[in-house]
Amino acid sequence: MVHPGTVLAQIDQQFPQSLARLFELLRFPTVATDPKHGADCQNATGWLVEQLGGMGFRTELRNTTGQPVVIGRYEPEGGGTHAPHILFYGHYDVQPADPVELWDSQPFEPQIRKGKDGKDSIFARGASDDKGQLMTFLEASRNWLSVHGSLPFRLTVLIEGDEEGDSTHLERFLKENAREFEVDAAFICDTGLWDDKTPAIETRLRGCIGDEVTITGPRIDLHSGYYGGPAANPIKVLSRILAAIHDSRGRVTIPGFYDGVKPIPPAVRRQWEKLKFPARRFLADVGLSVPAGEQGYSVLEQIWARPTAEVNGIYGGYRGPGSKTVLPAEATAKLTFRLVEGQNPKKVRKAFRAFVKSKLPRDCKARFVDGGGDSTGISVGEDTPWIKAARAALKDEWGRAPHLIGGGGSIPVVEMFKKFLKVDSLLVGFSRDSDSIHSPNEKYDVECYHKGIRSWARIIAQLAERE
Amino acid sequence: MVHPGTVLAQIDQQFPQSLARLFELLRFPTVATDPKHGADCQNATGWLVEQLGGMGFRTELRNTTGQPVVIGRYEPEGGGTHAPHILFYGHYDVQPADPVELWDSQPFEPQIRKGKDGKDSIFARGASDDKGQLMTFLEASRNWLSVHGSLPFRLTVLIEGDEEGDSTHLERFLKENAREFEVDAAFICDTGLWDDKTPAIETRLRGCIGDEVTITGPRIDLHSGYYGGPAANPIKVLSRILAAIHDSRGRVTIPGFYDGVKPIPPAVRRQWEKLKFPARRFLADVGLSVPAGEQGYSVLEQIWARPTAEVNGIYGGYRGPGSKTVLPAEATAKLTFRLVEGQNPKKVRKAFRAFVKSKLPRDCKARFVDGGGDSTGISVGEDTPWIKAARAALKDEWGRAPHLIGGGGSIPVVEMFKKFLKVDSLLVGFSRDSDSIHSPNEKYDVECYHKGIRSWARIIAQLAERE
Repeated sequence: MVHPGTVLAQIDQQFPQSLARLFELLRFPTVATDPKHGADCQNATGWLVEQLGGMGFRTELRNTTGQPVVIGRYEPEGGGTHAPHILFYGHYDVQPADPVELWDSQPFEPQIRKGKDGKDSIFARGASDDKGQLMTFLEASRNWLSVHGSLPFRLTVLIEGDEEGDSTHLERFLKENAREFEVDAAFICDTGLWDDKTPAIETRLRGCIGDEVTITGPRIDLHSGYYGGPAANPIKVLSRILAAIHDSRGRVTIPGFYDGVKPIPPAVRRQWEKLKFPARRFLADVGLSVPAGEQGYSVLEQIWARPTAEVNGIYGGYRGPGSKTVLPAEATAKLTFRLVEGQNPKKVRKAFRAFVKSKLPRDCKARFVDGGGDSTGISVGEDTPWIKAARAALKDEWGRAPHLIGGGGSIPVVEMFKKFLKVDSLLVGFSRDSDSIHSPNEKYDVECYHKGIRSWARIIAQLAERE
Repeated sequence: MVHPGTVLAQIDQQFPQSLARLFELLRFPTVATDPKHGADCQNATGWLVEQLGGMGFRTELRNTTGQPVVIGRYEPEGGGTHAPHILFYGHYDVQPADPVELWDSQPFEPQIRKGKDGKDSIFARGASDDKGQLMTFLEASRNWLSVHGSLPFRLTVLIEGDEEGDSTHLERFLKENAREFEVDAAFICDTGLWDDKTPAIETRLRGCIGDEVTITGPRIDLHSGYYGGPAANPIKVLSRILAAIHDSRGRVTIPGFYDGVKPIPPAVRRQWEKLKFPARRFLADVGLSVPAGEQGYSVLEQIWARPTAEVNGIYGGYRGPGSKTVLPAEATAKLTFRLVEGQNPKKVRKAFRAFVKSKLPRDCKARFVDGGGDSTGISVGEDTPWIKAARAALKDEWGRAPHLIGGGGSIPVVEMFKKFLKVDSLLVGFSRDSDSIHSPNEKYDVECYHKGIRSWARIIAQLAERE
C-alpha cells in the first residue's frame, strides 16, 4: 500500500518553495485577450515549459489559432503501458485586472496578507482562477515524483491560454489533434470547495445553446397614429411568444424541449437535500426571495438538474430618451437554453424555432441567428475509479466527505473532452466563494493552496493503491 | 345673398399674383429647429406681418419661448361685435430639407414643373406643409376683401413657427394669453383631400398619452448558468405583462381603459363604409395583409374611432453582437395609448400602471416615467355652422360632397384650442398623399393651391349668407 505520509511531510516542508513558484507564475500578466500582453503570455508559457521539463516531462509548446498551449507528457518507468492515462488541464490566461484602482495591491505583484475573514490569502489576478489551482496539481506531482520517483499513471498536462475567451481555440486544437490525447480521464482543477471546510466534486454541469430571434412585421417603421390598430406590432408579437415559453408553473412549453431529460434519481435528490443549501440566503444576496423556476423542484435542483429557457436580451423600436410614436418594423430577443444530460442542443434550437413559427400571426415573420453555445449537459457516473479515489482522498485531507455537487453553468473544456476525447472529467478544486475571481482583489487562501497540493497527493496515492 | 362669383373671378384673374406671393414665402428657409436659420425665420415673420398689414389687419409679432408668432387681427367695419370671431391657424416653419441631394430642384427655390402624375406642381420644402395651405386662406381673404371691402366675421390670424417641434412653445403662449383669443371657432388648413377629386373635413382625431415602464428584478445582472431557473427574469416578466395587454380579439384588457368610450354611431359607420376605403391596399403598401386590431371593426374604424395600446420600444439585457449568458436586472418598454373622445388620458395612464402592478410577481418591481402626450381624443359635432358652411362650399367647388373623416393621429393645436380657448376646429385642407411632406421633393399641386383659395372664398360666402 502506498501511504502518502512521506509525500505530505515533504509538501509541508517544501511549501515555501511551492509558494515561491506560484508567485513567479502570478507575476506574468497573462491577459490573453489584450494584444499588448502577447509577450507576457509567451514568457509564461516558457516558464511552464521549464517547470514541466524540470520535473522530467517531455514538453512541447504548440501553436493554436489563439495563444499557444503548453503540453507536458510523463510516462512511468518502463513505459507503464498498462497504467491509466490521465489528462490534467489548466489555463494560464487570466481576466483583465481592470479597474486596477479598486485593487488594494498591484494585481500582478502577488502579496500575502490577511483577507476580511482573517485568513492568510495570496492576492493577485489569477491567484484562484486558475494559476493557484493548476499549481496545486503540479506541485503535488513534483513532490510525489521527488519522493517516489514515479507517478502511478501516464500523465499529459495541457495548459491553455484562451479559457477566459471561452476556449474556442483549444476546441479547434483538440478537434484536429484528438488522437494525441488518448486518455482515460481528465482532471481539472478550476472549481471550488462546497464551503469553508467541506470539499466538493462536481459531477453535473448544464449545457447551453443560444438563439436569437427577430420578428418582422410591417415593411418599415410606421406612425402609431396613422397605423396604430390595424398594423401588426412586432414587439407585441415577440412579447406574446416569449410569454408563452413558460406555463404558470414555470415549466417550458416548447414541444419536445424536455425530450431525453431523465427525472432526478431519488438518491440524488436526498443527497442534495442533505447539503442544506441556504437557498433563501442565496436568493437574498441578489435581492430575490422566491424561487422563480419550475415548481416542484428545490432551488438547487432548478440550477443543477433542470433545463431552462432564458431571455438574455431584448430590443426593438425607439430606445432613446422620451417618447416616439413609432410602430417598429421589427423586434429581437436573444435567448439561451441551459440543458441537462439527455437533451440534444441542436434539437432544442430546432424545437424553439418551430415553436416561434407556430405562434406567428399572418404578416409577421421570424428570422433566426445561431447564438452559439451548443454544449450538452453532462453528468458523470459517481462510481468511476477517479471519483472513488477523489472521494476517499478529499475526506482524508479535509476530515469531511466531499459533496458530489452539480453546477448550473457550463465548463466548455469538459464538454470538449467528452466530445473529442470521449472521456469524463474529474472536477476537483479548492477556491472559495470569497475569492473574487474576475473581480478586483482576487485571492487564493494560503490554506487552500497548501491543502490543495496535499489533496492531489492523496488522490495520487489512492490511484497508486488501486493500481 | 352673397354670391361668390365675383370673388372667384378675381381669384382666377389674380392667381399669378397669389402664386408669386407663395413663392416669396417659400424662399425663406424656415427650418425653425436649426439655429442657423434663426434670421430666416425672422425674415419670414416680417414678410407675413407685412402681408397681413397690407390687407388692413392689425398685426403683432409676439415672442414665445420658441420662434415668434405672427398675429393679425381683423374687425369688420363698425366693429362687428355681433359677428362670430374666427381664429385662423397655420405655421411658417418647415421640416429640414435633408437629404438635399435627393431633391430634383433646390428646396428653397420653388419651381413649377410636372410631377410623376403629369400634374403641374410647386416643388419646395413647405409647399404643402404648411405654407401653400395657409396661403390658400390668406389669399381667399385678400381677394374677398378687395371685392367686398369687409369679411363677414371677426378674424384673428395666428401663424406659429414651432409646429414641426410639436407646438410646445405655442402651448405655453396660448395658456398664458388665452383671454386674447376669445373666438368662436378655429379654422386650420393643414390636412388633405380624401382622394384626387374629393375634398374632406376631419371631424375626429385621436388623442395620445405615453408611458414608460421598467421592470426590475434581481439587484444586479446575474449569470444565467448560476442563477438560471430560480432567479426572476425581468424580460420574461415584462413580456408577460405586454402580452396580457390585449386579448385574443385584439381588445385592450386593462381594467377601465374603455371608460367613457362611446360606440361608433351607426350613421357614422355607414358613412365610413360608403368611403370604400381601400384597406387592403393601405395595408399592402406597408407589407401587411390582415388588420391586426380589434375584431369587429373595419380598418378605418380601428384607426379613426378606436383607442389603442402600442409598444413603441423595448430594451433590456444584452443587445450587442453574439450572445451573453446574462439574466438582466431590468427591462424597459415605452408605450403610447391612442385615445378617442371620452377617455381621460391621465386615468388611462393610471389604469395602465395599476394593471402592470397587478401582474408583478413577488421580487419584481415596476418603475414608471411619464411619456408625455396627454391629449384627449376629439370629435367635432357635424352640425356646427362652420362644418355646414364648409360642406356646402367644398361641394360647390369640387363637384363632390366632402367626406367627413377621422384621423388616427393627433394634431396638438386642435387639442390646445379645445383646452385653452374652449373651441372646436374646422379642419379643411387640400394636400394630396403624393405631396411628400417631410420628404425630399415636397410639392403642392397648382390645382390644389388654386382650388384651395377658391374653396375658402366659398366658405366665407357661405358664412356671409348665414350671418
